[in-house]
Parts: sequence; C-alpha cells; structure tokens
Amino acid sequence: MAQKVKLSTIAEALGLSTATVSLALRDSPLVAEVTRERIKAEAIASGYIYNRRAASLRTSKSGIVGVCVHDIMNPFFGEILIAIEHELDRHRQTFILSNHYDNLSKQRSFVDTMLQLGADGLILSPAIGTPASDLELAEGNSLPVVLIARTVEGSDAGSFRGDDSIGMAMLVRALIAEGHRSIAMVGGTSKTSTGRLREAGYLHALAEAGIEFRPEWRIAGPRGRHSGFDAAETFVRIAERPTAVCCFSDLVALGFMYGLSRAGLRPGIDVAVAGYDDIDEAAIATPPLTTVANGQKEVGRRAASALLARLGGTAFAETEELIVPELRMRQSSGFDWNARPDLK
Amino acid sequence: MAQKVKLSTIAEALGLSTATVSLALRDSPLVAEVTRERIKAEAIASGYIYNRRAASLRTSKSGIVGVCVHDIMNPFFGEILIAIEHELDRHRQTFILSNHYDNLSKQRSFVDTMLQLGADGLILSPAIGTPASDLELAEGNSLPVVLIARTVEGSDAGSFRGDDSIGMAMLVRALIAEGHRSIAMVGGTSKTSTGRLREAGYLHALAEAGIEFRPEWRIAGPRGRHSGFDAAETFVRIAERPTAVCCFSDLVALGFMYGLSRAGLRPGIDVAVAGYDDIDEAAIATPPLTTVANGQKEVGRRAASALLARLGGTAFAETEELIVPELRMRQSSGFDWNARPDLK
Repeated sequence: MAQKVKLSTIAEALGLSTATVSLALRDSPLVAEVTRERIKAEAIASGYIYNRRAASLRTSKSGIVGVCVHDIMNPFFGEILIAIEHELDRHRQTFILSNHYDNLSKQRSFVDTMLQLGADGLILSPAIGTPASDLELAEGNSLPVVLIARTVEGSDAGSFRGDDSIGMAMLVRALIAEGHRSIAMVGGTSKTSTGRLREAGYLHALAEAGIEFRPEWRIAGPRGRHSGFDAAETFVRIAERPTAVCCFSDLVALGFMYGLSRAGLRPGIDVAVAGYDDIDEAAIATPPLTTVANGQKEVGRRAASALLARLGGTAFAETEELIVPELRMRQSSGFDWNARPDLK
Repeated sequence: MAQKVKLSTIAEALGLSTATVSLALRDSPLVAEVTRERIKAEAIASGYIYNRRAASLRTSKSGIVGVCVHDIMNPFFGEILIAIEHELDRHRQTFILSNHYDNLSKQRSFVDTMLQLGADGLILSPAIGTPASDLELAEGNSLPVVLIARTVEGSDAGSFRGDDSIGMAMLVRALIAEGHRSIAMVGGTSKTSTGRLREAGYLHALAEAGIEFRPEWRIAGPRGRHSGFDAAETFVRIAERPTAVCCFSDLVALGFMYGLSRAGLRPGIDVAVAGYDDIDEAAIATPPLTTVANGQKEVGRRAASALLARLGGTAFAETEELIVPELRMRQSSGFDWNARPDLK
C-alpha cells in the first residue's frame, strides 16, 4: 500500500466524474452496472483504498470504538452489543469487538491494540482482576473508558449495569412469597462484582424472611449453559433438596433445566427454577423461564451515549448508573406443591 | 498522543532498568507491587503507549486479522471463532471481530476499516449478495481473504466449510430409514449457499427414496432460535402433518422444539426433530437433539492456518475445502410410532 491513489486518479483514467466513481465504489444503483464494474476494475488495478472516514480522519478521530467483554456468545452481551451498535451507527462510529474470556492479558492486548489504532473510546465489561490502574493507563493515553455490567473497585470510570443485588433480592422474595422456604442459588462467582452482588441479594432476602441459609444451597461456579446443566447433578444429590433454585443467569438456568430433565425432574413442577437477565430465549423456553429483566438494551444504549457525549466534549457523571430491574414471573417457578404432599 | 515516550524515558526518570519497566507494565510479579505502581503512575503521567507489536510493526505487519460473520451470537460461529482465535494466538496475531447481520454495507464498512488499519488478513462468512468483486478489491489492496461457512459465486478465495448437501442428505436418509415418509424442512434461505445446499440435500434424499416432495413441507426463512419457535405454529397447521422435521440449524431446531412444546406436541415422541451443526447445546438439550456434526473446530482451525500460511508466504490451494459431516442420532428424532397408530 505504498502509493496513494485518489478518487480523481480513477476518474481521470476513465474520463468520468469523481462523483460517479465515488457512487460506483459504494455500489450505488445510480451508476450503470457495466460502468460500476469498469470503475471497480480500475480501482483494483490502481490499488485504491476506499476511505470512508477520510473526513473524520482529518479531524484526527479514527471513528473506531472498541468493545471487549468476557463472552460474546452469551446472549446477555449480544443484546447489549446490538444496542451499542445501534447507537454508534447513528454517529457513524465503527465498533470493533473482542472476547477477553476473563483473561487479563487478553484484555490488555486488546486495549493495547485500540491505543495503537488510535481508537476513540472503549466500552469494557472488565475481566476478573482488572486493576483500576489499567483503566487509568487507557484514560491517560486519551482512550476514554466506559464500563458495562461489572465495576472495578477504586475506579471512577462511568459504569452502566442493572442493579444486581436489588434484582436478585426481588426474585428470591417472590419465591418466598410462593411458599418456598428452602431455596438454592446456582452459579456465579465471588470474583466478579455481578456474582458478589447477586449472591448478596439472595442472602439478604433469605435473612429478611428469617430463613437460615444452608451452605449446601449455594452451588457456585457455573456461568454458562453447559455448567448449569452439570450443576443439576450436584443439586439432585442434596439430602433435603430445596424446592426452588435461583440461578446466576438465564443461561445457567436454561442449562440447569436441561439437567433437571435429564435427572427425571420436571422444572416448574418438581423444582421451581428462576434465571436472571430475561434474554430473548427466556420467554419461549420450555417451560417459560421466570427471571429478572436486567435492562440490556438500556445498558448498551446508555453506555454508548455516554461515550459519544464524552467524545463530543460533554463530560458525563463519573458515577454508577443503575438500571432498575423488573421481575418476570413465568411457569418455570410454578412449583406444584400438590406434587410434593410431604412438603405441605 | 503527540509525543513519543519510550520505555527508556520512564526508566531514566525513575532510575530503573528498562527491563524492570517493561515487566512492570506487563504486571509481572517479578517486580514488587509498590514499584509496579510507581512505574505505572510514571507511564500514565508521561503519556506512554505500551507497544506490544513494535517488532511486527517494523516488518510492516499490523498483527491484526479481521473476522466478520453475520451473527456472532450463533454458537455455530462462536465455536468457529474459538478455533480461529486459538490458532491466531499461537502466532501472536490479534483478532478483531464484527457482525455484518447480512448487511452488505456493514460488511463493506468493516473491510474498509481493516484496510485502513493495515490488517494482515480477513476471515469472512460473506454477507448475502457479496459480489466476487468485493473480495478482489480487498485482495487487490493486499488484504488476503479466506471464506468460512459460505461461498461467493465467481470468487476463487479459499473457502472452508462443512459439506452441507451431503450432510443434510445423510440426515434425511436416516429419518427415512426410521420409517418416515413425510418430512418437513424448517428454516434457511435460498439467498445463502448454506441454505441452497442444505435444501438440495433434503430434496435429493427425498427423491432418491421415491418420496414426492410437497410444497407445504418447506417452511423457509427461520435462521435463529426465536424464528424456529415461531415456525412451529405454521408447522402444526399443516393439514397432513409430517412425522419428521429436519431444521436448517441446531438453533432453529431448538427453538422449533420449544414451539412444539408450546403447541402441546412432544418433540421426539409426537414429532421427530433434527438440527444441523451439533453445537455444544445439542447433546444436553431436552430431548437431546439429533443433528449433523459440521466440523466447526476444523473450519476455524483450517481457515486460520490457511490465512497464516499465506501471510507467511505459502500459497494455499484456492479451492473449496469441505469438511466431511457426521450424523449424531439422539432422542429428538426418536419418533414414537405407537403414539400415532393411524400412521402404522
């Protein structure tokens, strides 16, 4: 890519206007098919690079925003990403994505790449163990950072997420209101703020109702569908099996329901099951999954807006913005007390 | 980012060796915590950008590979991406990801960004309607392209995918061998090579067995879980309801099974259901899903290897490489003929 070929070079070579060349390279139907093909052939031959962001480059902005999360395949993040992209699209920012798999050095490598590319900003669900100094290093290098889903202790980076402890407490209160007195919690880890806060909400709701927590009720660890499936094996071996289970996330809950079925137990009948996030699949699952709407769309929209505002020179409040969670009661938590006369 | 601060600048300012500074910025435990914090503070203050790829930049390679698919959230792609990343990691290439949602202008915008960043190569599942000239434009600008999952007519770009027509034919033959004579196909579109090839395999297997295809058996369109769920509504209204259904993908099949349950039909008992891809979820689903292993790991590994070989100067065969599919028979296709005495 040594030489710099301009639109006008191609236009002159073919005896066309630069406007026609520009339209043709965007595949506009305003230019006849045959002309478009001639123009493209010339562009290839001359080594032209179509530079969509020439204008923004002149103002020294790359037009690129980096987004890094631990698991792109989790629909929870997928739904946040769609909202982010929708917002960035409106401002002609391109969005570059990466998975850090909660591996700090992978996250650092991505941030590093963004710095080298001169990215305009970074939206991050911080990897486990991210020190506040990592975020400062980015900010110190003119890479504004906005956090989603998780927080970083000691950092004043703007953070957008659902209110995890309140949401889980609401859910557990609802299970208690249905008559449950023994409720397990499956999944999540104390290494993430999300895991700590949801567990705190669970324990709080139990304590508030005067229910004594039993250590065997807490099956920590699972954060995906398959590990949720595996956790059902541990669950069915609990001596006095809890009648209800709240899971760390919908993915864990959906896997856990598969696991219960495999063990011959009917979710929603033999065991009440609830998830967290209200991903699209929750409402169509068999049985439909009781869960907590966690505001993915709002998280994505607000995080992108805040970053864009900052890029535009408007500071945003450097504090947490918590989205208020909402309960979604569905059949998976409709435990059938008649199926367990021993518990009546 | 006007000034260029070197490791040695920071080292001198603090009276430390450049090696210590380098280790500290990588958060190496070889440097005492307190020293690391001092070094990071100095790096932030001086505006240092840690340049992991300085060496590769000197050889004018960016160390960046772009990957663009239509739906990152589809575990089929997720599993390919993990294999690609595994291969790229070993060669210290960074991988940048984007969704084109089958929107050609989004794909072009991503390719454009990759050109501007001087990316080393591109792995693409081409958007619907991608003309061969788009791939030539990238290649002409020194951006080698490797295709995954789908092909582009008229392009000689290397392409890695499972053998879609053979795979679907194998599956439909297996359903016929179980006694089925009326088999629907749900999902997929003739706009993608994958959709066309799988449909061709389905029609071929029917014809081969002397089964006359009926237009109402083909419910085209769905490519995700939710649209698979919705398709079940159409399916249950077919006057002479087919006893078996092969779906375009596992995601479609898993959603379709949810939809059957919602309609009061039991997948695997009232209707035999099969998917395609053998994503991780297929084996743990309720009921476990009959499907075709589509070689995601192999697709990812081979595509990344081929691109890396090309970056290293080794040409790879510019032809299609088809991964041989394998049947996975599970309970979802275990239609219970005793439940439908009318069909015996």
